[in-house]
Amino acid sequence: MNAVRVGVIGCGYWGPNLIRNFVNEPQTEAVAIADLDEGRLNRVGRQYPSVETTTDVEGLLTRDDIDAVAIATPVSTHYELAKAALEQGKHVLLEKPMTASVAEADDLIDLAEQRGRILMVDHTFLYTGAVRKVRELIDQGELGELFYLDSIRINLGLFQHDVNVLWDLAPHDFSIMDHWIGRSPQKVSAMGASPVPYPDKKLASIAYVTVDYGDDVIAHFHVSWLSPLKTRRMLLGGSRKMVVYNHLDVDNQVKVYDKGVEIQSAEERRQYMIQRRMGDMHAPKVDQTEALGLVAQHFAECIQTDQQPLTDGRAGRRVVQLLEASQRSMANGGAVETL
Amino acid sequence: MNAVRVGVIGCGYWGPNLIRNFVNEPQTEAVAIADLDEGRLNRVGRQYPSVETTTDVEGLLTRDDIDAVAIATPVSTHYELAKAALEQGKHVLLEKPMTASVAEADDLIDLAEQRGRILMVDHTFLYTGAVRKVRELIDQGELGELFYLDSIRINLGLFQHDVNVLWDLAPHDFSIMDHWIGRSPQKVSAMGASPVPYPDKKLASIAYVTVDYGDDVIAHFHVSWLSPLKTRRMLLGGSRKMVVYNHLDVDNQVKVYDKGVEIQSAEERRQYMIQRRMGDMHAPKVDQTEALGLVAQHFAECIQTDQQPLTDGRAGRRVVQLLEASQRSMANGGAVETL
Amino acid sequence: MNAVRVGVIGCGYWGPNLIRNFVNEPQTEAVAIADLDEGRLNRVGRQYPSVETTTDVEGLLTRDDIDAVAIATPVSTHYELAKAALEQGKHVLLEKPMTASVAEADDLIDLAEQRGRILMVDHTFLYTGAVRKVRELIDQGELGELFYLDSIRINLGLFQHDVNVLWDLAPHDFSIMDHWIGRSPQKVSAMGASPVPYPDKKLASIAYVTVDYGDDVIAHFHVSWLSPLKTRRMLLGGSRKMVVYNHLDVDNQVKVYDKGVEIQSAEERRQYMIQRRMGDMHAPKVDQTEALGLVAQHFAECIQTDQQPLTDGRAGRRVVQLLEASQRSMANGGAVETL
Amino acid sequence: MNAVRVGVIGCGYWGPNLIRNFVNEPQTEAVAIADLDEGRLNRVGRQYPSVETTTDVEGLLTRDDIDAVAIATPVSTHYELAKAALEQGKHVLLEKPMTASVAEADDLIDLAEQRGRILMVDHTFLYTGAVRKVRELIDQGELGELFYLDSIRINLGLFQHDVNVLWDLAPHDFSIMDHWIGRSPQKVSAMGASPVPYPDKKLASIAYVTVDYGDDVIAHFHVSWLSPLKTRRMLLGGSRKMVVYNHLDVDNQVKVYDKGVEIQSAEERRQYMIQRRMGDMHAPKVDQTEALGLVAQHFAECIQTDQQPLTDGRAGRRVVQLLEASQRSMANGGAVETL
Repeated sequence: MNAVRVGVIGCGYWGPNLIRNFVNEPQTEAVAIADLDEGRLNRVGRQYPSVETTTDVEGLLTRDDIDAVAIATPVSTHYELAKAALEQGKHVLLEKPMTASVAEADDLIDLAEQRGRILMVDHTFLYTGAVRKVRELIDQGELGELFYLDSIRINLGLFQHDVNVLWDLAPHDFSIMDHWIGRSPQKVSAMGASPVPYPDKKLASIAYVTVDYGDDVIAHFHVSWLSPLKTRRMLLGGSRKMVVYNHLDVDNQVKVYDKGVEIQSAEERRQYMIQRRMGDMHAPKVDQTEALGLVAQHFAECIQTDQQPLTDGRAGRRVVQLLEASQRSMANGGAVETL
Repeated sequence: MNAVRVGVIGCGYWGPNLIRNFVNEPQTEAVAIADLDEGRLNRVGRQYPSVETTTDVEGLLTRDDIDAVAIATPVSTHYELAKAALEQGKHVLLEKPMTASVAEADDLIDLAEQRGRILMVDHTFLYTGAVRKVRELIDQGELGELFYLDSIRINLGLFQHDVNVLWDLAPHDFSIMDHWIGRSPQKVSAMGASPVPYPDKKLASIAYVTVDYGDDVIAHFHVSWLSPLKTRRMLLGGSRKMVVYNHLDVDNQVKVYDKGVEIQSAEERRQYMIQRRMGDMHAPKVDQTEALGLVAQHFAECIQTDQQPLTDGRAGRRVVQLLEASQRSMANGGAVETL
Repeated sequence: MNAVRVGVIGCGYWGPNLIRNFVNEPQTEAVAIADLDEGRLNRVGRQYPSVETTTDVEGLLTRDDIDAVAIATPVSTHYELAKAALEQGKHVLLEKPMTASVAEADDLIDLAEQRGRILMVDHTFLYTGAVRKVRELIDQGELGELFYLDSIRINLGLFQHDVNVLWDLAPHDFSIMDHWIGRSPQKVSAMGASPVPYPDKKLASIAYVTVDYGDDVIAHFHVSWLSPLKTRRMLLGGSRKMVVYNHLDVDNQVKVYDKGVEIQSAEERRQYMIQRRMGDMHAPKVDQTEALGLVAQHFAECIQTDQQPLTDGRAGRRVVQLLEASQRSMANGGAVETL
Repeated sequence: MNAVRVGVIGCGYWGPNLIRNFVNEPQTEAVAIADLDEGRLNRVGRQYPSVETTTDVEGLLTRDDIDAVAIATPVSTHYELAKAALEQGKHVLLEKPMTASVAEADDLIDLAEQRGRILMVDHTFLYTGAVRKVRELIDQGELGELFYLDSIRINLGLFQHDVNVLWDLAPHDFSIMDHWIGRSPQKVSAMGASPVPYPDKKLASIAYVTVDYGDDVIAHFHVSWLSPLKTRRMLLGGSRKMVVYNHLDVDNQVKVYDKGVEIQSAEERRQYMIQRRMGDMHAPKVDQTEALGLVAQHFAECIQTDQQPLTDGRAGRRVVQLLEASQRSMANGGAVETL
């Protein structure tokens, strides 16, 4: 089967990582990279002499020797670029978050379907060994019924100029939640703050989001650019076992605790007993293959076999829907939004 | 000066600790302890032969050889017991949370003032070396302007029968926040869940509370009885420095990070610069004196010198107000409550 | 079966713990405690009113209502006291290290045999859940062939007046090694230092001991009173799995790593391959029953059923032999001692 | 000033890092790299198109357009290559350990002096921010008199084919010790084991080395390829303060503890007091500049200004002397070697 010929648009922080993986994976061929900034282009061009560099973004979209484009530009430009690419018959890999609004996401999903083209979103974390391992445990029933997800993604961060901390960091967490819990949340509430003010605008640098699934299942997210500590940790509580996924603990990213609480009614007595169960802990080996390599592979396979990606437009849309609703809630001082 | 003669009501989890400290502190004398459960009384009586034990709670309140009572019973009984004690002219030390409602707290504050008696709330954490050290840093201006407080108090916990996790754990955190930030929050939003259902009632075992101080200052609390990990950690971010207070890291409970973010406008250029500042970390030595001993001492001194306690009725009321508002928000699915 | 009636000699740091456990365990009865220091006796007497206190140590040894004595005095007095007790027909529980010399240990072992009395050494750690769990793993073949033991027991410690750090701390480690590896080491080498000098004598406060079992199996010990960090950690490497036993990590005291190295010869090629194997980690639940309670129970059972204790005189002697040899090596500047 | 024109010999694990830094540093120019393995050469050549690649090692040494050579080959070849380079009038940077014997080191030192050429050893760790910061603290008297050094450098490692774990890992630790303590040790004792046997030879994979400085100052080293945990940690105890240098704790590589022990004689009483002092902990910010870049810079400056390098031949020789003596001790079953 021929390798998928890919053009990359956007040569900022993430673009060079895409290029590297499209170069390394045998199923993909990195043909060209486009950006308006020549300095960046030159740096990448020197490292990957086989990849063409160009400032002509639109030109890249109309080339015949390109089957697919990966778009790693600011989110505000995703929609126009992806639309143009799909209209030119290209398959599209979009960086997260997929678009700046649900309406834009819907348009792209429709367009991709009409044109019979693959639309995939680069929710990279879903391709990491740790997130896949936890999904496996869920699928095998190891955790029992899921009770809650608690996520912390904080550090002393790189303040963004175009998006707030929610749009910068929460797409990772929302996509993982969507993948693990796999059903539709009902309500969301978010509060944020921007204690270090930008000179010319207001972008939250701290945000808390609570997601209500109904039935006493709850998810919560803390994202921040203003923490002295770097933390990337999720707790996932189930009726049988509980998981701690610490992305920074390279040796034991996933720990499974045989812990829980059991409420035993005693019919004879009025009082029931609530008992803790404390058993073994198990840290399964986690595949450390670079996730972005698997993203590139999966994108190629979906194109070659006309298969729907794991992280397709609908998955991207679900994340954008949560971002949009969280943003509205935050703008309204934490008012609960129904999804 | 004569030692303050104290009677303790309630001999459950905390009462014996009170007795121990009233016995040990030279300024207090533990006269008697009352509880309805004779088994508990006997256990304490054996350990402290000098302390009388009694099941006659009301009798204890009318004894002439008792100057003050400490009340360590379920919160639902605090109001009636404290009211009766004040009416008998006793000084009162109330366990946290002070009362089950703001209205009850107001009544007790008024009554104590009318009778000229000391009304103190046992917000124990405010007397720990770590919390006092952080307050010192704040007072000295070391942290600069306070930006945010983030608190986590979770473990695989002892499910309570009479109160939810919010009323069980958040009084600690709310009292610390009140002590450190020292001004009035404006709004609160809370969401909780009870994924392990009680047979006969509904009490949240997980709760998230966000407190909005206005001016982009925010505080957030995660309390849970359903975590596989035990965590007792607060982040306090200031414009100059940031603090990590980890209660479980006995050697370095308080770490002060010379870290922050600075936004520098560049007039000539359109773009401004956002820069991280990463400096030294300092872990000051923290006094490890048992906080409850200092509570007993302070209670005695306030009685002896007719001084207002650090944790007086008003401090207790502020915590109850937050609990009440959080509870209302939680009952309304996270609707924002104005304070 | 009648409870074993125990007298305790020595009321310093460890004696009160012995008393508490002899009081609590149903198979033992704490009759009396003897010490020359009346202040200490009074403190213990107040806490355990049912236990007699006396300064007449010899008198205690001749009482008819005492079946056994536990000796928790400085090591230099162990021999004389244990000898006198055995001669009076008492069973004896000796604190670690058992004696100040192998010759003394031999004498006591002989005497106990002649008199038909139980002689047990309080190697407390062997009764902890963690050490027992590791022994179980060894017995089940989980670890494969044992390769090495590496032990660190350091902190900013309480300098002793009568023994150096080796005699103070290494008995714990040597007894664990003896229990786990279960065969005779061949050589030992030790080096120490006393950088903070005592005014009137020289006692090492840092020591390193290497124990050679032959066959490329090695054990090593670092004991120190001069470390800024408190560490109590052992690595036990086997051909199949490796164990980390961290006594201070209460939640996961024992971690079993499915890790190792495999050397695969390739006959066709001159070069062989050395490969790392990195698998899961497993932290089995560890029984947290107080070890000293199990010591008291086991002592009673051995007396009642005339059974040889797990930590009998010979086990005590093996530890003293290592201490003595290490001490000699240290005195000779690290010269290797054959055992 | 003209950039120093450097040729690199050896293109295995470390050579490409040297090339990268000689390319990046403005004071050096990477002219060529020589290795016998063409595959490796090609990989490096593709990444650094400006650098010539050659299999003609001797040819490289006689080129006129090369001022200096960096030798990153197996240690057994260091002497011959360095000698040939010096004889051709080249300045030489040698990987650690400098040579396979003290005799070889002496020869090279003499030859470099005769020819007036710079001979530098790449003790990279001495150029890290952490090691420099600790040296600063020592020089400023912050730590007081140095008492001990304890070093652990263990992991599940890459078994080497040509050297044992001592020659592989201990050069790092010995060079740091030499730099910090700055005087001559008197004796050394080492014991090792090779529990996973090679098919065709015996190379220790675990080793313990104790270094005696006399005057109750001691240093100790644990190096291993057989640990389930990766540890790179040094304790440095002084009379005033104590340092923990944890290379893997990127945020707080150096922690300075205001802790110690004080022995206070009390003339009136027979007994003196030994007291612990427990004060603040301070983690100074540590420069994270890549150490190998500073090595390249320093090498260039020493050549340009005819200055003796910090890590000159004599420093390299001191490390080799310790390795040689440790090796002899290990071969003699731990017999103490006088230095």
